[in-house]
Amino acid sequence: MIEIPKHSQFSIHNIPFGIFSTSKKSPRVGVAVGNHILDLTAVAQQHIFEFDPTVFEQEVLNDFISLGKEITQKVRTDIQSWLQDDSSILAGNPQFFIKQSDARMHMPVCIGDYTDFYSSMEHATNVGKMFRDPEHALLPNWKHIPVGYHGRASSVVVSGTPICRPKGQTLAPEGPVFGPTQRLDFELEMGFITGRNTSLGESISTQKAEEYIFGMVLLNDWSARDIQKWEYVPLGPFLAKNFASHISPWVVTLEALAPFKVAGPSQNPKVLPYLEYEGKKNYNINLEVGITPENSHEKIVCRSNFKYMYWNMAQQLAHHSVNGCNIRVGDLYGSGTISGQDPHSYGSMLELAWMGTQPLTMNDNTARKFIHDGDTVTLRGYAQKDDIRVGFGEVSTKILPPQS
Amino acid sequence: MIEIPKHSQFSIHNIPFGIFSTSKKSPRVGVAVGNHILDLTAVAQQHIFEFDPTVFEQEVLNDFISLGKEITQKVRTDIQSWLQDDSSILAGNPQFFIKQSDARMHMPVCIGDYTDFYSSMEHATNVGKMFRDPEHALLPNWKHIPVGYHGRASSVVVSGTPICRPKGQTLAPEGPVFGPTQRLDFELEMGFITGRNTSLGESISTQKAEEYIFGMVLLNDWSARDIQKWEYVPLGPFLAKNFASHISPWVVTLEALAPFKVAGPSQNPKVLPYLEYEGKKNYNINLEVGITPENSHEKIVCRSNFKYMYWNMAQQLAHHSVNGCNIRVGDLYGSGTISGQDPHSYGSMLELAWMGTQPLTMNDNTARKFIHDGDTVTLRGYAQKDDIRVGFGEVSTKILPPQS
Repeated sequence: MIEIPKHSQFSIHNIPFGIFSTSKKSPRVGVAVGNHILDLTAVAQQHIFEFDPTVFEQEVLNDFISLGKEITQKVRTDIQSWLQDDSSILAGNPQFFIKQSDARMHMPVCIGDYTDFYSSMEHATNVGKMFRDPEHALLPNWKHIPVGYHGRASSVVVSGTPICRPKGQTLAPEGPVFGPTQRLDFELEMGFITGRNTSLGESISTQKAEEYIFGMVLLNDWSARDIQKWEYVPLGPFLAKNFASHISPWVVTLEALAPFKVAGPSQNPKVLPYLEYEGKKNYNINLEVGITPENSHEKIVCRSNFKYMYWNMAQQLAHHSVNGCNIRVGDLYGSGTISGQDPHSYGSMLELAWMGTQPLTMNDNTARKFIHDGDTVTLRGYAQKDDIRVGFGEVSTKILPPQS
Repeated sequence: MIEIPKHSQFSIHNIPFGIFSTSKKSPRVGVAVGNHILDLTAVAQQHIFEFDPTVFEQEVLNDFISLGKEITQKVRTDIQSWLQDDSSILAGNPQFFIKQSDARMHMPVCIGDYTDFYSSMEHATNVGKMFRDPEHALLPNWKHIPVGYHGRASSVVVSGTPICRPKGQTLAPEGPVFGPTQRLDFELEMGFITGRNTSLGESISTQKAEEYIFGMVLLNDWSARDIQKWEYVPLGPFLAKNFASHISPWVVTLEALAPFKVAGPSQNPKVLPYLEYEGKKNYNINLEVGITPENSHEKIVCRSNFKYMYWNMAQQLAHHSVNGCNIRVGDLYGSGTISGQDPHSYGSMLELAWMGTQPLTMNDNTARKFIHDGDTVTLRGYAQKDDIRVGFGEVSTKILPPQS
């Protein structure tokens, strides 16, 4: 049987789904197991699945996810059983496993709509302090509504896709000017992917919300702070965000994350009944961000945790659908930038370098107020409890110079 | 040959594309001709098209549009020729034509992303006067940027789809409350649908922009003003908009609208070079909005024109892509509410009844500050020049009571 390295984030407890290709074969569905990928199209040739296995031949997970949790979770638990059984279908078939280093990862889903929330109180407070009123940093609606807005689905791309520094319009002292952004920033986020459709007019309760969530990814919601500052009034961020957002390629199912549920912060003032929830709905997921300048090595600039979120995913989905807005399989819902209380846990350069007033020093001794051309920004995340580790891998992006 | 009534908006000069079904056959591609629909799957059986005609058997126009303008415009001009030729393939085949009254219309495209602009100066000024500062109604960025934001693609539906009054969170004097919106409003807009893909990082110039636009539809971008007021700071409208947006079913190609090009308003201050354009880029399209209360007849409450737009579609698309944001076939781009200078040309109830201070009187003598349950709101539009008429039909929606 394939060996899974101890402490691997792709342990037998994880079994995340993704889309991979090899030099010999086009994109298809696989599962990360240790340092390998289990090719589900190969497994399917053994006629072992009780559903149409052509879902594994698709270029995105949407058709597989659409089978529903009863089936997708059985696939996951079956694989867990097979990996522990030396007489299982996987045992005599090493060709089912492909080295991750021999594969290329692709976008895991076709995203219908991408919504981004703003659910970290520390992040919203930091931004409010910098751009508005330090004494009243949080806006009046923030503790009553999981504030969110619509993002661009077309420009969500998978880890490893380089992007050029975007250009845009900003306000200089002499008036509006056009050129490459001078304030390119990452945003450390996590995103959830929905696994069921609803009809227009239908709402989802906080109690049922997690049934509609297939799994999670890491999300870097790139931002151009100077473009954002000039354009965002009154309708919100637009070109400052939609040039690219990157996600990690492996979708970790909500069931794999269940052991890491924790209580969220107490919500005061009390939320309206449609936002009330029962039980633990936050997740203890360790997060970090590293910056690697060209020709240098990585410096970790942020260590945070998904458990800090004020608003949880069930509340976000209940709010999003309370007006009857319909959701679809493959939608992406971002958490918003995840910042903790400790300044080293802030999830953006804007906050880490506090609007450029406290530059960070890289390992080549260069200073960073924002992201430079040639920098590679990498987000990582994993959950750990006793000996159980479930990880997301990483989402990594190199910034190229602006197009001429 | 089929007869086209004089003054029909679906004249031989139009030839708009849409998706229709009949009791006998599932959704497919057709063209509106007078009071009929030309079934292109039936025409295709004559082996007359020089491309794979299965594009006409699809449930959306995306595959047809993806063939490119060279092909789609040849289909349009071929149909125009055939309709005028009594010996053409259409002449002896009345079964190619289906009465519009015998067909049901469907969403014409699968929308990848939906963006909504805010490009009418009169509308932005009216809103600024009501909600901000009457002396400085336009925000500082407005004349420099075609301000826009991302909307929800999943809840864009076709004319005739009824919706229930949405519920949501609003701010009452005693604090946040939950319930049906009390300020349901229409927004008179037009939308364009893109016909080509770009790659991430690619930009579109104003000069090339119209090559990327397949055609246009009428768009009613429903809004809940009370929800919007409480939620929209700082990230823009969200649940106040995403419960539904309605479009008209026939996509009128940009080529059919070419005879109606007019000069737009002069733009002062001068725009940045990437937003400069040459030639006429506005379109003279007459628009109207009617409200029909339950058990009464329609009152026209607004007569406007698409030519009033300050920012044209070429500028919108150039701005949208200047940062490298990629566009896809089937994206929808809304104009923003279209208001003219005359108060009867205002494109929303918010403006027509001026925040409820000047209620409109319906034909059953009931007053309207906003839209009531049971009301049907209908947007119509057509262009006319000499004897040439090219119309959009209508987008009509009945508002049902909130779900219990």
